[in-house]
Amino acid sequence: MIDIFTTGGTIDKIYFDALSEYQIGPTAIIDMLRENNVYAPHRVTQLLRKDSLELTDADRTEIYNAIMQSDADKILVTHGTDTMVDTGRFLRDIKGKTIVLTGALQPASLRKSDAEFNVGFALAAVQSLPHGIYVAMNGQIFDPAITQKDRAAGRFISN
Amino acid sequence: MIDIFTTGGTIDKIYFDALSEYQIGPTAIIDMLRENNVYAPHRVTQLLRKDSLELTDADRTEIYNAIMQSDADKILVTHGTDTMVDTGRFLRDIKGKTIVLTGALQPASLRKSDAEFNVGFALAAVQSLPHGIYVAMNGQIFDPAITQKDRAAGRFISN
Amino acid sequence: MIDIFTTGGTIDKIYFDALSEYQIGPTAIIDMLRENNVYAPHRVTQLLRKDSLELTDADRTEIYNAIMQSDADKILVTHGTDTMVDTGRFLRDIKGKTIVLTGALQPASLRKSDAEFNVGFALAAVQSLPHGIYVAMNGQIFDPAITQKDRAAGRFISN
Amino acid sequence: MIDIFTTGGTIDKIYFDALSEYQIGPTAIIDMLRENNVYAPHRVTQLLRKDSLELTDADRTEIYNAIMQSDADKILVTHGTDTMVDTGRFLRDIKGKTIVLTGALQPASLRKSDAEFNVGFALAAVQSLPHGIYVAMNGQIFDPAITQKDRAAGRFISN
Repeated sequence: MIDIFTTGGTIDKIYFDALSEYQIGPTAIIDMLRENNVYAPHRVTQLLRKDSLELTDADRTEIYNAIMQSDADKILVTHGTDTMVDTGRFLRDIKGKTIVLTGALQPASLRKSDAEFNVGFALAAVQSLPHGIYVAMNGQIFDPAITQKDRAAGRFISN
Repeated sequence: MIDIFTTGGTIDKIYFDALSEYQIGPTAIIDMLRENNVYAPHRVTQLLRKDSLELTDADRTEIYNAIMQSDADKILVTHGTDTMVDTGRFLRDIKGKTIVLTGALQPASLRKSDAEFNVGFALAAVQSLPHGIYVAMNGQIFDPAITQKDRAAGRFISN
Repeated sequence: MIDIFTTGGTIDKIYFDALSEYQIGPTAIIDMLRENNVYAPHRVTQLLRKDSLELTDADRTEIYNAIMQSDADKILVTHGTDTMVDTGRFLRDIKGKTIVLTGALQPASLRKSDAEFNVGFALAAVQSLPHGIYVAMNGQIFDPAITQKDRAAGRFISN
Repeated sequence: MIDIFTTGGTIDKIYFDALSEYQIGPTAIIDMLRENNVYAPHRVTQLLRKDSLELTDADRTEIYNAIMQSDADKILVTHGTDTMVDTGRFLRDIKGKTIVLTGALQPASLRKSDAEFNVGFALAAVQSLPHGIYVAMNGQIFDPAITQKDRAAGRFISN
């Protein structure tokens, strides 16, 4: 069983014409897994709906607790990219689980988006990697302890 | 370094108006990796352009030899789904490499396609799994020795 | 009221994995009109499901009769492009109606398709043009009597 | 010759990861016309890049002047939907031209967008309608003098 927790971020941004603005909508990941014929046993829980720049310690504690309370040892977290590494570090003392964080630079609702690719990538990572905490972005697997997002370049870099 | 060999299959089918039919085109994977901001070091070689039902033993030997001659130990093969398992078995005595086969049930050129998701999935699998030969489809990792495609259900099943 | 008759053609081609081939599926136009928030009163009738190269005189008579029996004077026909002009000529003696034929060079199911644009284009043409028979393709309105498809160039040309 | 003036609006909104927000980008219409194989002679001028709620009288005067100075009598204006009707009324005393305003409720950059359909629709309207000023939305042609956007319903309504 894979537990998937969604927290918001760009990946789930949609456009509301009624407000002429973008907001974080209901997670795209449920439809995405169905449309891609995913048969790996999984559950999706929509935990938060926030831009990751707005996540507080209380929010991160909520993510932490959700993971601790899960009976699964494979945990996939979708998350805004700006503070994905910070959340990865916040979760560092959780043992006995493979925790993979992923997200997208372009919303899943866009014609050209890295969302499907990244979720596919993270879904294999969470099933294949040993216990530990990972950031899965740019077709690469990162250790959050030594990684940062290079916002101008639109990519993650390891020190 | 990840060596990616493309062999054709549904994933690369495109529509030619001039012939009013679908054919296997130039591989979609090069654009796909660029558009999804993949920075994992990789090379793409377009080995064959065939529907997998038409692959011969000579074709499979060509795939075998390309893998053997590669200096990379991470090998990703895109392949038609109908005989993906057969090719996986054909490669079974290659040691010292992680070989992952993937493909798609719907062409990458379609609006709704599992191609991006599956390639993302396979790209993490090839970087995370121990040496061996795997089929990466349906968000799951299969051992080709004990797997088959259930064509009516449109999915892979392990015995 | 606009009567929309679908006859098949590239616009409605979809990919069937179970057969590893493309076929003309249920018409895409019903979903397309709904997704594009079309409120112009209309009815959609799926008349035929054929590649236009396979249309017979009996098929064209069926299209002719459907138009004659319609109480609407605005008629939109989706049709394969290869013989769209021939069908236009076949309908030439129908008076008192605006009849617009359109189709697509790339199936509506493809990521990059001219289907939505062309149907939108034809839907305005049928509401705006005087009685007569027209081919609406390439962002242009053609008289079928003096038009032909240039297959190599993928476009319609007037003499 | 068709003169196409773009003024911004939802149709041209894109997502900038570097700012985690949406902005009005370079107009999508040039690529759109090319990808849809439009051969009708046309010119595209990007006049403004504004949300239509922010358009001032000075902006509308700029649109007015651009239309007056054009030697074409077919004018297509892409525009935000919120004040499209107001701009239509502002242009009311321009004679001798067919002026069609269109836009989209969902950005052209989205997977599901009415942008291509609406531009196709407007392109036929501008070639087919007599001189006058029209709003082309929802697969319908409206007289801006007696039309309003029903924002909650996401559609245009004539009185």
